[in-house]
Amino acid sequence: MPLTSDASGVFPIAPTPFNPDGSIDWASADRLFQFYHDIGSDGVTVLGIMGEAPKLEPEESVELVKRCVARMGAKPIIVGVSAPGFAAMRSLARQVMDLGAGGVMIAPPPSLRTDDQITGYYAQAVEAIGSDIPFVIQDYPLTLSVVMTPAVIRKIVMDNPSCVMLKHEDWPGLEKISTLRKFQKEGSLRPISIVTGNGGLFLDFEMERGADGANTGYAFPELLIDVVRLQKAGQRDAAHDIFDLHLPLMRYEQQQGVGLAVRKYVMAKRGILAHDAQRKPGSALSAAAKAEVDYLLARIAKHDPRAKI
Amino acid sequence: MPLTSDASGVFPIAPTPFNPDGSIDWASADRLFQFYHDIGSDGVTVLGIMGEAPKLEPEESVELVKRCVARMGAKPIIVGVSAPGFAAMRSLARQVMDLGAGGVMIAPPPSLRTDDQITGYYAQAVEAIGSDIPFVIQDYPLTLSVVMTPAVIRKIVMDNPSCVMLKHEDWPGLEKISTLRKFQKEGSLRPISIVTGNGGLFLDFEMERGADGANTGYAFPELLIDVVRLQKAGQRDAAHDIFDLHLPLMRYEQQQGVGLAVRKYVMAKRGILAHDAQRKPGSALSAAAKAEVDYLLARIAKHDPRAKI
Amino acid sequence: MPLTSDASGVFPIAPTPFNPDGSIDWASADRLFQFYHDIGSDGVTVLGIMGEAPKLEPEESVELVKRCVARMGAKPIIVGVSAPGFAAMRSLARQVMDLGAGGVMIAPPPSLRTDDQITGYYAQAVEAIGSDIPFVIQDYPLTLSVVMTPAVIRKIVMDNPSCVMLKHEDWPGLEKISTLRKFQKEGSLRPISIVTGNGGLFLDFEMERGADGANTGYAFPELLIDVVRLQKAGQRDAAHDIFDLHLPLMRYEQQQGVGLAVRKYVMAKRGILAHDAQRKPGSALSAAAKAEVDYLLARIAKHDPRAKI
Amino acid sequence: MPLTSDASGVFPIAPTPFNPDGSIDWASADRLFQFYHDIGSDGVTVLGIMGEAPKLEPEESVELVKRCVARMGAKPIIVGVSAPGFAAMRSLARQVMDLGAGGVMIAPPPSLRTDDQITGYYAQAVEAIGSDIPFVIQDYPLTLSVVMTPAVIRKIVMDNPSCVMLKHEDWPGLEKISTLRKFQKEGSLRPISIVTGNGGLFLDFEMERGADGANTGYAFPELLIDVVRLQKAGQRDAAHDIFDLHLPLMRYEQQQGVGLAVRKYVMAKRGILAHDAQRKPGSALSAAAKAEVDYLLARIAKHDPRAKI
Repeated sequence: MPLTSDASGVFPIAPTPFNPDGSIDWASADRLFQFYHDIGSDGVTVLGIMGEAPKLEPEESVELVKRCVARMGAKPIIVGVSAPGFAAMRSLARQVMDLGAGGVMIAPPPSLRTDDQITGYYAQAVEAIGSDIPFVIQDYPLTLSVVMTPAVIRKIVMDNPSCVMLKHEDWPGLEKISTLRKFQKEGSLRPISIVTGNGGLFLDFEMERGADGANTGYAFPELLIDVVRLQKAGQRDAAHDIFDLHLPLMRYEQQQGVGLAVRKYVMAKRGILAHDAQRKPGSALSAAAKAEVDYLLARIAKHDPRAKI
Repeated sequence: MPLTSDASGVFPIAPTPFNPDGSIDWASADRLFQFYHDIGSDGVTVLGIMGEAPKLEPEESVELVKRCVARMGAKPIIVGVSAPGFAAMRSLARQVMDLGAGGVMIAPPPSLRTDDQITGYYAQAVEAIGSDIPFVIQDYPLTLSVVMTPAVIRKIVMDNPSCVMLKHEDWPGLEKISTLRKFQKEGSLRPISIVTGNGGLFLDFEMERGADGANTGYAFPELLIDVVRLQKAGQRDAAHDIFDLHLPLMRYEQQQGVGLAVRKYVMAKRGILAHDAQRKPGSALSAAAKAEVDYLLARIAKHDPRAKI
Repeated sequence: MPLTSDASGVFPIAPTPFNPDGSIDWASADRLFQFYHDIGSDGVTVLGIMGEAPKLEPEESVELVKRCVARMGAKPIIVGVSAPGFAAMRSLARQVMDLGAGGVMIAPPPSLRTDDQITGYYAQAVEAIGSDIPFVIQDYPLTLSVVMTPAVIRKIVMDNPSCVMLKHEDWPGLEKISTLRKFQKEGSLRPISIVTGNGGLFLDFEMERGADGANTGYAFPELLIDVVRLQKAGQRDAAHDIFDLHLPLMRYEQQQGVGLAVRKYVMAKRGILAHDAQRKPGSALSAAAKAEVDYLLARIAKHDPRAKI
Repeated sequence: MPLTSDASGVFPIAPTPFNPDGSIDWASADRLFQFYHDIGSDGVTVLGIMGEAPKLEPEESVELVKRCVARMGAKPIIVGVSAPGFAAMRSLARQVMDLGAGGVMIAPPPSLRTDDQITGYYAQAVEAIGSDIPFVIQDYPLTLSVVMTPAVIRKIVMDNPSCVMLKHEDWPGLEKISTLRKFQKEGSLRPISIVTGNGGLFLDFEMERGADGANTGYAFPELLIDVVRLQKAGQRDAAHDIFDLHLPLMRYEQQQGVGLAVRKYVMAKRGILAHDAQRKPGSALSAAAKAEVDYLLARIAKHDPRAKI
């Protein structure tokens, strides 16, 4: 299903499951996508940063998308296609769209600094992949070290009709959502889907500022779905209640560098992944860290039975 | 009172109070230090990054320390003396020690990269200020972009007997505390006080990993004191309970760039500061952000009357 | 003499002379400014990055400007006033203008990323120092990590009538000069003085692209004056001949980090400075490096007697 | 031919030739490698940063190595295998060694900061590719932002017997060569080949400090060969004479970002490449820049007929 600017809800960032020997664990991949489907995700993103995309071979990337489409094809699937060269970006983008992906996500290379460099890069990227492929801007300064103002995002959106979504992952980023929605109200920005990242750490307020949902990972994507649903239903206090319950673990999982190890550890504990392995170079959890995660899970489980694992 | 390697407990990072015209609000400064004293702080840190130290004139810095000593002199006062040149560092360090400060805090300049550059810098700094002044290592990679391994910290500590404390502000940083404490057990590191930063966002577990306390800011330093006290008393669950209650606001206050505006806004609301002004260049809160903070305060106040403001 | 947008020629960046004990060597300072005057400099810049400005105390900075004015007051003197806070920037700027400086130079703080952040910073800086003080934009991405497009520079110039000069130190930077001069021709940019940096390493072509002169350091500022004079006189080949003769040493002196040590070593050898000392933290030359510089000097001296030292 | 720690001389960094449509220009590739062979290169490096390696598809990389081996197989061929994941690194390394490459070059990923992170990374990389493949450390802080001390390089060399060469590209870097050679004399470092980069900008003195040759690009690799040969023959002045003649162009070509465009422009002018095209995203030369390069060529040609093109 193609991704459109009406997209809304939760698009989990899928980790890539590996076997302890570093090969892809395809059975877990199938189970993972089925899981995302069954809990009611509105789509999914594969081959993102937390999907260890740069460590995959081109044919592995393509196969992963195939598996994803087989399980979730009725929902829009977003595929990260960021690459050092436009040739590789085009090649992957066209392949995955042919396979049934809904759109692609493009992160700016870390060397970009000025507004013109950023908007120029997206213009070139669209020229490369073709203007018929819906794409998502990834705005993630903490990791990418590229800072986009609301005006820069607006220019990318207005210059490129195939831009349908912003993966908002600035930090702090609440004012950015408000500004972009103000642009829309004023008429200087066309409607665009805004879904947020950062492991959901500010999802409670991001929804109140006008986000359409989340495009991020957390070992309990159901929690992201709860918060988005409750906020859309106007149940502010209930949204914050469930959010606050999970916040201690979300915070723990949002640690740069070890966050993915935490996420995979919990997802393995939940039985979704067979292993918590990362392809090298990767990070691992100490025994102390695992005990801390277990403690946090036990605390959440007192009020949320899903954490009883 | 001199700072020693036995130091333990909570050393709030003091913001510098300003009037709306940018001048220092001395009355608020006096009230702030009195407040830190009355709630049972074990010391205080002035002229840190969140104290807007680089924006102060030398004579203002000295006056602020004088005010602090007058209110809190019975407790060790830590003074940030980081400076581009060692001449200025020495000058400020010696002045504030004469005024009754307990020690100084030194951050590495952002240009340092290699282990040798870092240990070499601290050796030169100690040579500059004199080996009779107790000093604190500030380990804050997110803002300073200098990464210190546990082995580098150990070398600084072992090479410089006047090093008495580590302000631990790495992120993620839990394993670093464990490693340093392991060094001590093995006998390769002498005892040193480890107090943690990052707005307290991991204080719950940092205490369990072996931290001696906190050296950071939060609009409710009483909460930091609670967590440290409960963890020291072995009341793990109670420590996490009160910590988790405040975590939504702590997270909000820990946003890079706008965090200080949140902290000053709440401290002004509490009546501790007369204004939430920053000296230019600074940041300010939008009406939406203020309403969000108010909402978080109201939620905390249901269980912690101190947040009823 | 006030600095204007007509400024042209060579404004050497003055190193700050120190005694081996780290105190300022005032006698050498006097001699240095007299030297700049006598060789026909069109002005001078003090308290720049290569002047070790951040290591000076406020009163030392003021005294240095006084000494400079006494020797070179008939020429426009540019004073670096970059500071972490606008209060200190204003204080120094107003003091030095009262003492007879011609204008001030402002570098953007390294944290700035977006176009708006940069133009906003200069607007605030001008508000702080007052719109009556002529100022110079320092555009030096290699060291400051702030990248300004020609359009950003244009906006700063057009928004702030007190902006009279660009210290152009981008690398590569030739196209930037051409673009700015094209803006002027098109009428979108008012006239502004463009003087170049980077140790003169591209001065030969910068003049041909439309630069007005140089605002940089080199142990033989006479060479910069020669190149600027010859290029203005249309003697292209002669300009390149003398430039190429010095290029091996200019390249050697333009090494990041040790460049200042090379410059001071040669200027001490020339008898302009009494010592080649830097205030700590600083760098020093090895015996091998000194021998290499001596060798380069001997090679230049075969064709330029000024290098016979 | 396998690369050994006795390697010496000039190993040009080969650009990858492209057609204007972005496909690889294989005829030019063949001609380029034949050219390197005919001028007496001691080997060659393909798939380096200046070879636009990250923009190539895996099969293109392999084909390029095949072409190179066919023309230069009697000399050691170094292949850049840097990759975000060790799986891809291993895959490419083993393939190219099977095809007849002499060794591989590994650059540290830009995220590495501490000494331990750097040495740990190389240990993992060797584990990944196998300890039977000779490898080259690429030490290039300006572009990679990873700073390696001499002691870190020594540790990598001593821990990994398959490390045979350092591509030295620190800036400034002369003291680093001296220190490493001192380590060898003292017996703490085993013999290793040191070849230098930075476009040859310091090759004159690098040879005098103990470098074995150059592993870098310049549109006239013959010049690098001349300098290395003359310095090895003890003809210091002659080496500097020919070096200084080319320095104005070397400096022009060593501009970050546009340097590759200059190199390809001149090599196309020389008839070695059919086009000066880069695969997107790339940079191009303005008419003014081309005229400047032509002027520099004409000046060199007065004394070096090879520049008459």
